[in-house]
Amino acid sequence: MGVLGPKGSYSEKAAKQWISEQDTKNEVSLEYYDDIPDTISAIVDRTVDIGVVPIENSIEGSVGITLDMLLENDLNIIGEIVVPIEHCLLSKGAISDIRVILSHPQALAQCRQFIKTHFGNAEIRTTGSTSHAAKLANEFEEMAAIASRESAQMYGLDILIPNIQDRKENHTRFIVIEAHYEGMEKTAVATTSPQKDNFKTSIIVYLKKDRPGALYELIGEFAKREINMTRIESRPSKRELGDYIFYIDFAGHIDDANIKDALDNITSNVGMLKMLGSYPICNSNIIRQ
Amino acid sequence: MGVLGPKGSYSEKAAKQWISEQDTKNEVSLEYYDDIPDTISAIVDRTVDIGVVPIENSIEGSVGITLDMLLENDLNIIGEIVVPIEHCLLSKGAISDIRVILSHPQALAQCRQFIKTHFGNAEIRTTGSTSHAAKLANEFEEMAAIASRESAQMYGLDILIPNIQDRKENHTRFIVIEAHYEGMEKTAVATTSPQKDNFKTSIIVYLKKDRPGALYELIGEFAKREINMTRIESRPSKRELGDYIFYIDFAGHIDDANIKDALDNITSNVGMLKMLGSYPICNSNIIRQ
Repeated sequence: MGVLGPKGSYSEKAAKQWISEQDTKNEVSLEYYDDIPDTISAIVDRTVDIGVVPIENSIEGSVGITLDMLLENDLNIIGEIVVPIEHCLLSKGAISDIRVILSHPQALAQCRQFIKTHFGNAEIRTTGSTSHAAKLANEFEEMAAIASRESAQMYGLDILIPNIQDRKENHTRFIVIEAHYEGMEKTAVATTSPQKDNFKTSIIVYLKKDRPGALYELIGEFAKREINMTRIESRPSKRELGDYIFYIDFAGHIDDANIKDALDNITSNVGMLKMLGSYPICNSNIIRQ
Repeated sequence: MGVLGPKGSYSEKAAKQWISEQDTKNEVSLEYYDDIPDTISAIVDRTVDIGVVPIENSIEGSVGITLDMLLENDLNIIGEIVVPIEHCLLSKGAISDIRVILSHPQALAQCRQFIKTHFGNAEIRTTGSTSHAAKLANEFEEMAAIASRESAQMYGLDILIPNIQDRKENHTRFIVIEAHYEGMEKTAVATTSPQKDNFKTSIIVYLKKDRPGALYELIGEFAKREINMTRIESRPSKRELGDYIFYIDFAGHIDDANIKDALDNITSNVGMLKMLGSYPICNSNIIRQ
């Protein structure tokens, strides 16, 4: 299983949580990658069977590169995990020593106000993961990483300030993905429980251009069948400004008759429909403050 | 007018383009700010009359901090400008000298593949703007900035490699905003042409929770009146994962009878509706490849 590395990343935490929830008796070994594109590429070229990457955070929103790579590659989503995030400021030095702050761009964005208020003059460097930031921060006392509590111990850093994200409520949703190819079999790790309750399905849709009302009709296919849409997110098509692709999640399994029916109707009216898969809803999704 | 500084930023370019299109005879002076939050704060506390900030890019999508600050503050959008973006790699040194690459996180994301392919081992530092990166890159030959062609000349750098974004088609949409307060008058700079053709209106909507189909009904208010929705974007409400706020743009002016009617109907069915304003559509929005 491929995850964002090095050890101590939130992806690793998500992966371990997911593995512990599976019925499989197979031993799962983790492979660590430098960044999200490398992790997904290792899944696509089948260097690893499956992988875990972040897709959405409750403060900063979607992880653009993950959405883009789901569109550009043939991948199935087979699971999701929601992980509570508690960013800490970690360093070998004291607070007054800090001149450089390192972290992944998403984590930096989640702590934007904190950095501005307390370290307005610090140099900001981006890394491929929060745990990589922690590893680098071990080199100089003037460096601090924004990373998890666990990575402090792992890389010999002190927790200078805990819980530094701009909002207390901070969760990241990760997805478990595998390559989709001709003649594929179910991976040994992925075990889908037989009953189809409590599943969600993810699709990507590109609407036909110059057809006002196309999005309304699309959503209508779900609404009139009382299918609950849990998420709709737009991404640029990258062809021109103002042209979008929609990422839609809804409750239910692709094998459900009403969902099959809705998707059949949608297919004939859109420019492109890409199935990403049906997978069990993570219950910790419903955590409230 | 507040813009992202220092001189040579794409915001400055957008601001100058917008000023040249206005009928005003008033002299407009530009004030430069370190980052997007500082620019917007200067508008909110009325240090400047109006300001220009990026809201959306054709490769990387929405600028999260701009969307968040439109929600959190009382602001009117009074105009938009679409600027073609051509990122260049700028430095005082040679390509083989480059160890550090500096730029704004959005520009870094727009050049992700380029950086990975050609400078996989470079250290990546983020700055408040692309022009600030160019200014800093003047200090050391081992530093390169990702910034506009214009900022090379401005900060004594060579264009090592032009046009480095991952997609040739690259446009950023900027908005012109002013503070909204009790008893405000129209600013001297903002001149809105009397005819209401070719306007768009921007709103923010928070749907009532636990009401499946609420988004469908909302979009239906536009669809059944043949109002053309040009953009729908979700942002996390930051309360919990899976809870979203919608940013919607549609063709037409708030004074149009059918739009007034649609908004009246929407107001009574949603948790929150915030008007951001009606403003002339930027024609360069319709650029195609």
